[in-house]
Amino acid sequence: MAMKIIGASVVFVCDRDFSIIRDGGVAYEGERIVEVGVYDELVAKYTKSPSDSKILELESGFCEPRNEKIESVFDSEPQKPTPILETEFFSGCVLLPALINAHIHFEFSSNSTSFVYGSFEGWLASVMSKRDDVLADMDKAIESTIEEQLDSGVGSVGAISSYGADMQALAQSALKVVYFSEAIGANPAALDMLLADFKARFFAAKGLASRSFFPAIALHAPYSVHSVLAKHVIAFAKETFDEKSCVKESSAKPATQAIANPCETFCTFSAHFLESNAERLWLESKNDANAPKGWFYDFYTQTLKIPRPAPYYTIQEFMELFSSTRASFVHCTALSSLESTFLAQGGHSLITCPRSNRLLGGSMLDLKKLDSRQNLGIGTDGASSNANTCMLDELRAGLFGMGGDLQALARVLLLAATRGGAKALGLANGTLESGRSADMAVFAIDGIVDSTQPEVHFILLANKVHRLLINGEQVR
Amino acid sequence: MAMKIIGASVVFVCDRDFSIIRDGGVAYEGERIVEVGVYDELVAKYTKSPSDSKILELESGFCEPRNEKIESVFDSEPQKPTPILETEFFSGCVLLPALINAHIHFEFSSNSTSFVYGSFEGWLASVMSKRDDVLADMDKAIESTIEEQLDSGVGSVGAISSYGADMQALAQSALKVVYFSEAIGANPAALDMLLADFKARFFAAKGLASRSFFPAIALHAPYSVHSVLAKHVIAFAKETFDEKSCVKESSAKPATQAIANPCETFCTFSAHFLESNAERLWLESKNDANAPKGWFYDFYTQTLKIPRPAPYYTIQEFMELFSSTRASFVHCTALSSLESTFLAQGGHSLITCPRSNRLLGGSMLDLKKLDSRQNLGIGTDGASSNANTCMLDELRAGLFGMGGDLQALARVLLLAATRGGAKALGLANGTLESGRSADMAVFAIDGIVDSTQPEVHFILLANKVHRLLINGEQVR
Repeated sequence: MAMKIIGASVVFVCDRDFSIIRDGGVAYEGERIVEVGVYDELVAKYTKSPSDSKILELESGFCEPRNEKIESVFDSEPQKPTPILETEFFSGCVLLPALINAHIHFEFSSNSTSFVYGSFEGWLASVMSKRDDVLADMDKAIESTIEEQLDSGVGSVGAISSYGADMQALAQSALKVVYFSEAIGANPAALDMLLADFKARFFAAKGLASRSFFPAIALHAPYSVHSVLAKHVIAFAKETFDEKSCVKESSAKPATQAIANPCETFCTFSAHFLESNAERLWLESKNDANAPKGWFYDFYTQTLKIPRPAPYYTIQEFMELFSSTRASFVHCTALSSLESTFLAQGGHSLITCPRSNRLLGGSMLDLKKLDSRQNLGIGTDGASSNANTCMLDELRAGLFGMGGDLQALARVLLLAATRGGAKALGLANGTLESGRSADMAVFAIDGIVDSTQPEVHFILLANKVHRLLINGEQVR
Repeated sequence: MAMKIIGASVVFVCDRDFSIIRDGGVAYEGERIVEVGVYDELVAKYTKSPSDSKILELESGFCEPRNEKIESVFDSEPQKPTPILETEFFSGCVLLPALINAHIHFEFSSNSTSFVYGSFEGWLASVMSKRDDVLADMDKAIESTIEEQLDSGVGSVGAISSYGADMQALAQSALKVVYFSEAIGANPAALDMLLADFKARFFAAKGLASRSFFPAIALHAPYSVHSVLAKHVIAFAKETFDEKSCVKESSAKPATQAIANPCETFCTFSAHFLESNAERLWLESKNDANAPKGWFYDFYTQTLKIPRPAPYYTIQEFMELFSSTRASFVHCTALSSLESTFLAQGGHSLITCPRSNRLLGGSMLDLKKLDSRQNLGIGTDGASSNANTCMLDELRAGLFGMGGDLQALARVLLLAATRGGAKALGLANGTLESGRSADMAVFAIDGIVDSTQPEVHFILLANKVHRLLINGEQVR
């Protein structure tokens, strides 16, 4: 297999310190990154003779890559044909890890004007009243949402599935997918049925598992998943993932360039959590008979027709459900600093959805409240709670709408969309680093070479992706 | 001249109360709106015989207008050929006044990555250091920025011109333009030259005046315009606009459908004002020798090479410069509530540029600080302090980034982009109302018919304009 080197004027490594390499490059082989550094130096290192490298002159034109094939020293055993080094440099472009949309509902892709925005309570009530319409025209909307992800440079998604209706489309797509079959249900009489339905969806997803489709498990939210159901689902998850059988291996010996563990599925639990103050109030009332129960009490009695409802968990109890595993808690706009510390210490991640939070909860996540060790991913949520599901628009909205120092925020957002998302989903990508997946995106940004704040200008100006690689394969 | 009626599933009148007419329409003749109401009723009223109106069936298809020509009772004097009523209904669309981008610099359209964002001080320093590059490739960038305005449904702009380089392009464009020739200068030795340069640019603009190009005057900012220059410019403005000669009238008698005063140019002064806390500190130090002078002191001494600089005005003095006229104060992120009350009482407007403010000043305008009577317009500012100059993206950024109740904010933003902008610029458009200019925009919004929050969904989902009329003429 040929070694390839891809380079660009500006490379965001997306390591902890947000290193930027000018005229940088990434050498990769198959699905695996081999080395990251200065493009010219990488080309020189992996070129057979020094004279070969001299013919490589970087294009000064904008985004007109020069492709070169050069004989390489790499893997040149006598019995094989001499491998070729393929190189490509994108002038005037940014190269970074393919973006990770860590939380998205593909099944809610076609409902942009159906729901009421402004408060979580109003939104949820409108969802319940229009539930039957939600699934109309779903297939077409799922396909166009997949295209929207790829076009905006997203290589991996954390897809929450309520019905399993997006399973085939996602498994067949070019996207790398952590596919969360979601358990939901509050009616005690229906728990067996709900568990069976959840398991059926999960096993269907497991049947589609591959090196780019990873079945995982979500609990919808503490207010909507009965504690008995939650415990069964978590026990089921442990049992299932201990088998370590979710990734289908071909019968042939894996290629030496393969990544041993492209997705640590054991840690990829997901749950919506503390998305509104109403939810916080409801959970806080569990151990205090005199506490106000707020909007959720009416929701249970009137919409779900559950008499005398009581919260299934306190906030602490819900977090502790996941104490022997790792989970991603989504939204958390009503999370306290202490709770963030608890999650960070447990190795859990937080996934923020800035626009959805503004539309449903009234405001975006206050980053100042988070523990400094808190791993943070970012997602678009579904189109039913957003203007669209374009990650670039999500990053822009975060940059404009979240407070604080602009340049520092730009880095926080870009790391959330790469490194943090990978950690949240357990994926071996998200950073340009030897041994990680060769999931990379190239964006043409007019004037980026002159920018002293490329992370800010990237978020402001990035549009349709120019080149997208997933597992080393070009998909855009 | 034929009466025309344009209709849509949802009509935003953009009056003070944000009236919405379902299946509404606007009857207009030439450049003037005649009547606003329910589409079917308008068609019936202006159709010659009742039977004619029956053939009008609204299209159920999405955005496929049915055009009809019907004989009309309107203006049917015997000596003229019988006028025709032309009707068009846009199903699944929103019709509203053409948007007004009340503050934009076309001359700074090509500098998206040149400048440093995060603080006003850092931005201004980077502008000064790259001033010569700013004008490169200007013409092409101006043209594409004009197209961006029209494509996003903008019919009118408040264009601030530093050099006069955008004058010809704007005068020849389809846009309705209030063209602010800007005075700037702090060096006492250069004031005569600066005033002469300003006047030359203003008179050049006056030579291009028309029913869609209105010359006006801007003072750059209190920190950059010497008080002597400011007083000369304001005296010049009074003298010039008292002549009431800025709108070229054709020698022929104006058509009866013409609007007597399409732009009240006497009130269209503009100034950047209190865009940063540094500016506030600087102005506050004028009458207090012991007060800290902050960043601007260094800016004067080191960048502008002015020894022993002192502020030209206090905050109050600068506002009072415009006491005998009306002005639009742009940005005002560091304005106090009391100062907003002072501006509102003086009939002055405030123009906010949400994304520019976030990028340069750190945060968007706090609407809660404004006097309830404060007229508010909205603009994109130039591309040199923004991601782009698309008004729809500006409205979205405002909706996501400014706090407060979502639906109320959506209305505030849409009124700022229509009615408030018209008031700020002195234009006779911005509201769908009899006697106003027939400047209207139609946007296709998937699902808008079912929306219970069309103002929110419009801002979230509006893209390229579907139909744009300026002075009754179709330009998109």
